[in-house]
This record gives sequence, structure tokens and C-alpha cells, in this order.
Amino acid sequence: MEILRERILAEGRNLGDGILKVDGFINHQVDPVLMDKCGQEFARRFQDVKATKVLTAEISGIAPAVTTALHLNLPVVYARKSKPITMPDQIFLTLAPSHTKGRTVELIVSPEYLGAQERVLIIDDFLASGQTILGLVRLARAAGATVVGIGALIEKTFEGGREALSFLEVPIESLARISEMRGDKIIFAD
Amino acid sequence: MEILRERILAEGRNLGDGILKVDGFINHQVDPVLMDKCGQEFARRFQDVKATKVLTAEISGIAPAVTTALHLNLPVVYARKSKPITMPDQIFLTLAPSHTKGRTVELIVSPEYLGAQERVLIIDDFLASGQTILGLVRLARAAGATVVGIGALIEKTFEGGREALSFLEVPIESLARISEMRGDKIIFAD
Repeated sequence: MEILRERILAEGRNLGDGILKVDGFINHQVDPVLMDKCGQEFARRFQDVKATKVLTAEISGIAPAVTTALHLNLPVVYARKSKPITMPDQIFLTLAPSHTKGRTVELIVSPEYLGAQERVLIIDDFLASGQTILGLVRLARAAGATVVGIGALIEKTFEGGREALSFLEVPIESLARISEMRGDKIIFAD
Repeated sequence: MEILRERILAEGRNLGDGILKVDGFINHQVDPVLMDKCGQEFARRFQDVKATKVLTAEISGIAPAVTTALHLNLPVVYARKSKPITMPDQIFLTLAPSHTKGRTVELIVSPEYLGAQERVLIIDDFLASGQTILGLVRLARAAGATVVGIGALIEKTFEGGREALSFLEVPIESLARISEMRGDKIIFAD
């Protein structure tokens, strides 16, 4: 997606160790107009998968998941990283290693909002090693739901996430695919 | 706002101790169409305050802040509750007691995205005691920015947040004002 690639080139920063800083428009400050266009594009790409729910992980997945869900007219569930007191005692919980946090995080979904009949579209900000998305897949499967598609704003193709998710045999769409980061240079796959 | 009040009556649950569970459409599962309408309403109410930025707190403020910012065509900054590795060493940090978490949380904003010239519109899911929003006010002021308005989806008028924020002398708008929760009954102020 051209406008997203251009924005990454203009404002993204390679912090080394595979970390791409996009805090100016995705991860701390959010450009809602850009997020809305990304949501519209995801909605277009996934229009035929018959999703009934969008699933993401707090925190940075929320903005693109909400705009995608808005254009698909579907509810969004965001997996929590700690259990709020409003959640029932019986929950779906899985662990996912986080590269940017340098530790394992919990991903928690309440059975109230993820049922066996759901067709789940997973949307997140990054597809890197795929560990967070695999965690969301485990939550969906624990609920008996079917994952029907996976979308990420930015894919780092050199971290193998797409391969790690290929066993699911569902469409995987990313809006900007980065194949290499070297010094100040960010190189796209397409 | 009628559709929000109706949704609270239909799906909100009083868990006691002043806690209103709205996990089905705001705090865990999000109804993006409802959030978009709320954002549109905030944009209408704050159209004259000349905001340059929307500020919220992760996590549950993100959805209404993004839709508000979309309709106002402004960037959003969400205060983080832990410092990600992409953030510089010099940050704005304040502490805010959280009733629903039962502990004090950190609110962190990078100086990169909040400057002295900014006119800040604060949007959050709840206005209860006002402690989280006061934390956001301190962050804005630490940056030298000016708070020009405060919006919350749901206000619990009996927790005194509006009074705690009145010294700011800015418009405070909430889309549903709850004056009492007694057993299964949720009573609105207007």
C-alpha cells in the first residue's frame, strides 16, 4: 500500500536488532486518517472470507483493527494482557513471547465474546516472527472458533512470521512488506 | 447520546463497588460503528476548541479517541502505561491511581509527540473520579501544552470527576451521564 510505504520511508526509524520505530503514526501517536485507509484496504482484501469478528491484541493492534472492523461492520475483540476485574474467572489465556518487550506476555480473551461459531479475522500492527498472532490463533482455537484470515500493517519478511503461520492455510495480507533494514535504509519486498 | 444510553441499559452490568461492566461494546469487545458515532458526536461538540491533538490513555481510550480524531482530522497520542524500547530516555511520566486496576499506574508520553504549542483535547472511555484524566492533564502541562477540552464516553457523576477537573475551566463533555447504580438499575442524570 503506497501511502503506508511512503510514510514508513519518511518517518520510520531502524533502531537496530530488527526494531522499526513507527511511533509517529502507529505505536504511540496514531494517524487516524492513515489507519482508516488501512482499515478500508483490509476490508477490501478480506471481503470474501465471511468473517464474523475481528480479533487483535492490545495495544497497538487496536487502531487498525477498529478501522478494519468499521469498514466490515463487525465487532472487534482485543485480547487483554492482564485480566481486568470485569472479566469472569473462566477465561482463555495463552502466553506469547514479545520481542519489543523482551519478555513473555499473557493474551487473555473472555469466552463471553469469542464463541465456537465465530469466523475470526486477526488484525495486528506487525507481522514479524508471528508469535503474537500465533497466540491469537491459539485463543481463537481454544474457543472453538475458525481463523479465516490474518492482516498486518507491516510485515518484516526476514523474521519468518508468514512461514510460521502458513500451516493455517488462510490468506495472510500485509500492507507494507519490509525485506531488509540496513542502517538508515528500509527496503521493501515489493 | 441516546444510542449509547440505550446500549448501556441493554448490556451494561453493575458489578458493585462503582464498577460498570461495558466489556461487550467498549472495554474488551468494541462496537466500531457505535465508537464511530461517538467520535462524530465528540467532534461536533468540540469543533470550536481549536484542538491540534487528541490525547488519551491506553487501552480503552484508544477506540473513541481514534474515531474522534478521525472526524476532527487530528493526530492522537495515547499515553503508554509502560515505556516501550522505541521511546527516548527523556519522557513525561506521571502516576495515576486506577480504581478498576486497584493500583497506581504510570502514564507516559514521549516529548517527540507532545509540544508546547499543542492544544490538547483529552478523550477517554470513563470519567469517574477523574484521576486518569488528571494524569493526562499533568502530562500535557509538563509538555507546556494547553488542555482545551475533555470528553468521556461515560460519566459517573457520583464519583466527583467533573468537580475535580473544574479548575481547568475547559468544556467537559460526556455522552452518557450515570447518576446512580443500584442493584440491576442504572439511572442516568439526564
